[in-house]
Amino acid sequence: MQQSAITFQPVHKLRELVARRQPGHSLEAPFYNSQEVFEADLKYIFQRHWIYVAVAAEIPEPGDYVTVEIGKEPILILRDDDMQIKAFHNVCRHRGSRLCADEKGSVGNLVCPYHQWTYNLAGKLIFADHMPEGFDLTHHSLKPVHLKNLEGLLFVCLADEPPADIDQMLEQMGPYIAPHQIENTKVAAQIDIIEAGNWKLTMENNRECYHCTGNHPELTISLYAYSYGFAPKAELAAGLANYENIVKDSHARWEACGLPSAEIEKLSDVSGFRTMRMPLDRKGQSQTMDTGAACKKLLGDIKDADSGGLSFWTQPNSWHHFMADHIVTFTVLPLSPDTTLVRTKWLVHKDAVEGVDYDVANLTRVWNATNGQDRHLVEESQVGVNSSAYRPGPYSPYTEELVEKFTSWYIGRMEAGLEQG
Amino acid sequence: MQQSAITFQPVHKLRELVARRQPGHSLEAPFYNSQEVFEADLKYIFQRHWIYVAVAAEIPEPGDYVTVEIGKEPILILRDDDMQIKAFHNVCRHRGSRLCADEKGSVGNLVCPYHQWTYNLAGKLIFADHMPEGFDLTHHSLKPVHLKNLEGLLFVCLADEPPADIDQMLEQMGPYIAPHQIENTKVAAQIDIIEAGNWKLTMENNRECYHCTGNHPELTISLYAYSYGFAPKAELAAGLANYENIVKDSHARWEACGLPSAEIEKLSDVSGFRTMRMPLDRKGQSQTMDTGAACKKLLGDIKDADSGGLSFWTQPNSWHHFMADHIVTFTVLPLSPDTTLVRTKWLVHKDAVEGVDYDVANLTRVWNATNGQDRHLVEESQVGVNSSAYRPGPYSPYTEELVEKFTSWYIGRMEAGLEQG
Amino acid sequence: MQQSAITFQPVHKLRELVARRQPGHSLEAPFYNSQEVFEADLKYIFQRHWIYVAVAAEIPEPGDYVTVEIGKEPILILRDDDMQIKAFHNVCRHRGSRLCADEKGSVGNLVCPYHQWTYNLAGKLIFADHMPEGFDLTHHSLKPVHLKNLEGLLFVCLADEPPADIDQMLEQMGPYIAPHQIENTKVAAQIDIIEAGNWKLTMENNRECYHCTGNHPELTISLYAYSYGFAPKAELAAGLANYENIVKDSHARWEACGLPSAEIEKLSDVSGFRTMRMPLDRKGQSQTMDTGAACKKLLGDIKDADSGGLSFWTQPNSWHHFMADHIVTFTVLPLSPDTTLVRTKWLVHKDAVEGVDYDVANLTRVWNATNGQDRHLVEESQVGVNSSAYRPGPYSPYTEELVEKFTSWYIGRMEAGLEQG
Repeated sequence: MQQSAITFQPVHKLRELVARRQPGHSLEAPFYNSQEVFEADLKYIFQRHWIYVAVAAEIPEPGDYVTVEIGKEPILILRDDDMQIKAFHNVCRHRGSRLCADEKGSVGNLVCPYHQWTYNLAGKLIFADHMPEGFDLTHHSLKPVHLKNLEGLLFVCLADEPPADIDQMLEQMGPYIAPHQIENTKVAAQIDIIEAGNWKLTMENNRECYHCTGNHPELTISLYAYSYGFAPKAELAAGLANYENIVKDSHARWEACGLPSAEIEKLSDVSGFRTMRMPLDRKGQSQTMDTGAACKKLLGDIKDADSGGLSFWTQPNSWHHFMADHIVTFTVLPLSPDTTLVRTKWLVHKDAVEGVDYDVANLTRVWNATNGQDRHLVEESQVGVNSSAYRPGPYSPYTEELVEKFTSWYIGRMEAGLEQG
Repeated sequence: MQQSAITFQPVHKLRELVARRQPGHSLEAPFYNSQEVFEADLKYIFQRHWIYVAVAAEIPEPGDYVTVEIGKEPILILRDDDMQIKAFHNVCRHRGSRLCADEKGSVGNLVCPYHQWTYNLAGKLIFADHMPEGFDLTHHSLKPVHLKNLEGLLFVCLADEPPADIDQMLEQMGPYIAPHQIENTKVAAQIDIIEAGNWKLTMENNRECYHCTGNHPELTISLYAYSYGFAPKAELAAGLANYENIVKDSHARWEACGLPSAEIEKLSDVSGFRTMRMPLDRKGQSQTMDTGAACKKLLGDIKDADSGGLSFWTQPNSWHHFMADHIVTFTVLPLSPDTTLVRTKWLVHKDAVEGVDYDVANLTRVWNATNGQDRHLVEESQVGVNSSAYRPGPYSPYTEELVEKFTSWYIGRMEAGLEQG
Repeated sequence: MQQSAITFQPVHKLRELVARRQPGHSLEAPFYNSQEVFEADLKYIFQRHWIYVAVAAEIPEPGDYVTVEIGKEPILILRDDDMQIKAFHNVCRHRGSRLCADEKGSVGNLVCPYHQWTYNLAGKLIFADHMPEGFDLTHHSLKPVHLKNLEGLLFVCLADEPPADIDQMLEQMGPYIAPHQIENTKVAAQIDIIEAGNWKLTMENNRECYHCTGNHPELTISLYAYSYGFAPKAELAAGLANYENIVKDSHARWEACGLPSAEIEKLSDVSGFRTMRMPLDRKGQSQTMDTGAACKKLLGDIKDADSGGLSFWTQPNSWHHFMADHIVTFTVLPLSPDTTLVRTKWLVHKDAVEGVDYDVANLTRVWNATNGQDRHLVEESQVGVNSSAYRPGPYSPYTEELVEKFTSWYIGRMEAGLEQG
């Protein structure tokens, strides 16, 4: 795969495409399959917004690091000697070698494998052999990347001036996430899948559950059908009223336990997000096959396994489900116009013992199956939108309003990016 | 693989390439290896002409369907409740998902796997959940694709106004093909191969047997060498006269049995084609290793296994061999500038019993071997034409005149397409 | 993979890139990852310079041939009936098929597999069936490729007018290489690896040993650390003086045996090269794990296994190590902007018997391991230079001066090519 810095860029064509987007409808085909739009997506969306990439629990000790690639940008996230989490471009200042090739690891200093240029955990170059008199180590520090830590969820931004409204998200979301104490968790399982589809098809799929009944037999065990949205029908009124009562009662109970539950919807912010704690069906404890807790040891100070599921969605590329017993967290990373990485991590209490407190197969069964089903849906959508017969179709105002909020956010951010240049 | 609707298209360069083509010679290299020409081939050739894709025998009952992709265009061909065969773009009108992912299947209605939008076999949308008041189902029918049924050979055309001369082909070819009764056959075997070469190299290879003696030991068992064409040489005169007598006698005998046999050559028509029934060598019954029938049960009302082979070639992408006992039918579909799908189907009488009336290994041996040999020739040609040293070379006027008729047809259709825009 | 002859070529962008190159620093990212620069590299570097491709020992008899591809150019190198080595484009003049698909072989005449057009070993067309009266065989000879034989090292040039200074290289290098008598060797082993990196990263890696201490435990057994270059430090003075004495004594001894040893450095010539015979450490005989000879039968008339290692580097794509017992020879061939073929051959005396005189695993261990380590370094560099954070970094003036000589040669040749057009 190559990156081309000197390719002809038909920006005016992209402006036209963005300008003529029809609200309430899926996007025109080039948004899903052209190389030019893909490069613009990386430039205007993934390099200028806060991108969720990892959790603090993966790097508990000084020198622990994780790496990630956003587009072609290799990034290193580490915990320094002061227990602060920092992010750097994972690129040596000598001849550009990637510093850390592994996805996770632990180091004292960062030693480039090529010629042993050595950086401390603050990113300062502290050793470079064979360089001449007057070579200034201080001019060759690692290039930093902006990082924000939302109670253990790590977001990075590649822009020089990242969107400032991330601070409102941190402030508003902090109380929701804090009780789950991510710093006291560990990653019990991680599964990466590559979907043969554009990343926006992956995101649109995530932003609605219209498709759930027909496609997700495992996931829908624990989800109330009423939570998906639906067209108003007289015969559903009684069921809906019942569900709304369950939500009201649950919210009151959870809030009393220190678990904020009310919906916040800021999907149109630059650093857009939405959250809500929702009741789960049947046993109501967890997104498992029997809806019971997958881990005996509950998270943080949570006492009651029956705490529903706190969902948290961010623009442009993540979603998360926090339950009393475990957390499932997803990040979506574009690889090419029609391939996308979906990385899923399951977190449990750091002291939980595998085989005693939890079983990995049980913990991962629902979302592993669901991810596979969604992959198929995304891939079939990619085949279809490549057709010359494809035209943007209408979103349901009842079950796809959050898809519209993703798509219109995307279009707005592309407009802003094109204006800014 | 991505499709780019906003890519810079150097149409004037293509016009120049087309205009300077030297008749009687193979094409210049960009015709075989450039992305731009490939996209033009899809646009001007494969989206504007009648493309052979399947046989009616594959979908005998209402609700039976086959799917195919022409370039990036997923197409669905089905038999409706009135036993009519129809073709549609295989794309849901909601968010564009492919409707049917399998190559063959059977359904009552067409239910999109994504959100269960449901179409009847006439392509009408009959169900779409969660849509608002006033949503008009009738505005969201599947988009139809033109289809013609030539006695069981199915051709589709993606153009709004397909070439009208298909009707002459149907009229002229009908009597040749009808006696083999494709509707009373079944697909005994299908083999898809992907050749690492441009589709036009595959077609040029198909349009001559100059290469047969040196490359096709299995195929040449049943073929008379005199049927390939050759440079006139005095020492061949006696053999040729003998062959011409065999053809004359055979044609008289076959015509008397209701099997039209005379050559028709319309390769320069927009819907270009050629046909001829030719005697086979040795036992003379079939393209098998011993030239005897591969299936005991003969096709249609044919009584005599010794009925030679009716060949039928179409522009731009198919050829077919009809014998008394079986049919072999080929379709060529471009995948990229240098990869091409060749799909081969072997048909026998629908009541023939595998293991009793025919053996699949015996039935497929000759053309499976021949396809593999042709793949190698095409792939070696692709390597060579990529060289800067490659220059279009001369076709033999005796053994490659049908290659010239393919190539000049192609150039003419590209000119027409470029003019039309 | 396709070649596009009608693609938009942003030559002015390339001129700017070349013009602003900062001496003493690695190249800007597009030189390592853009399709446009890759195509320019093939055009201006690989099609206009002398490219090392094979050794004469691979084709000892008339009719023996080897094939190679430089970019998209398939080339055939053969020994003719007069024992002369010739090179041709490996492309039939009929419809462009590659003539010889195998990497090595032996033929009487060159018969195209497609339609049996037949060329003699001088490249003259001597048979073409079915062609009309007046077809002139003499107008359809194979297209020749320039070839130079440097005492058994074979270089080809695809330019119409190849760089003339190759003759100086032949004259100067002849006496160094002749004593190893390549014509009396055989290829004991060949290993091709494909590196996921740009070919210039492979070459830069080859042109310094700054990275050796940290990465090549096997190779450094036989290499004196002082031979790599280093920043001047007082504490190294004694060791350096000692090494310089070893070199001086060794050179005197080798020269007396007819083995020229003094450095020649012509890396800035159009046909740039460098050579030097260097002492090896420990037993000092060979680049093996115990530094002893890997083959009991010494090369040519060499009597003393303790003859050090003659290294020979050429611009743009080869290096070679000649020892008393064996030769290791490397050629680098670009495949795409970020993939590169590295072909390594180990030569021993043609009469040496495997299992008696030499063991292939022992012979190849050091460089096979070293190649694998270098592949990793090149691949990590490719990931890093793709980052937007990558900026050309400074070369060490002590240990990377030959990298600078490669890079500045490359930039100069690109300038010359762009000027010439």
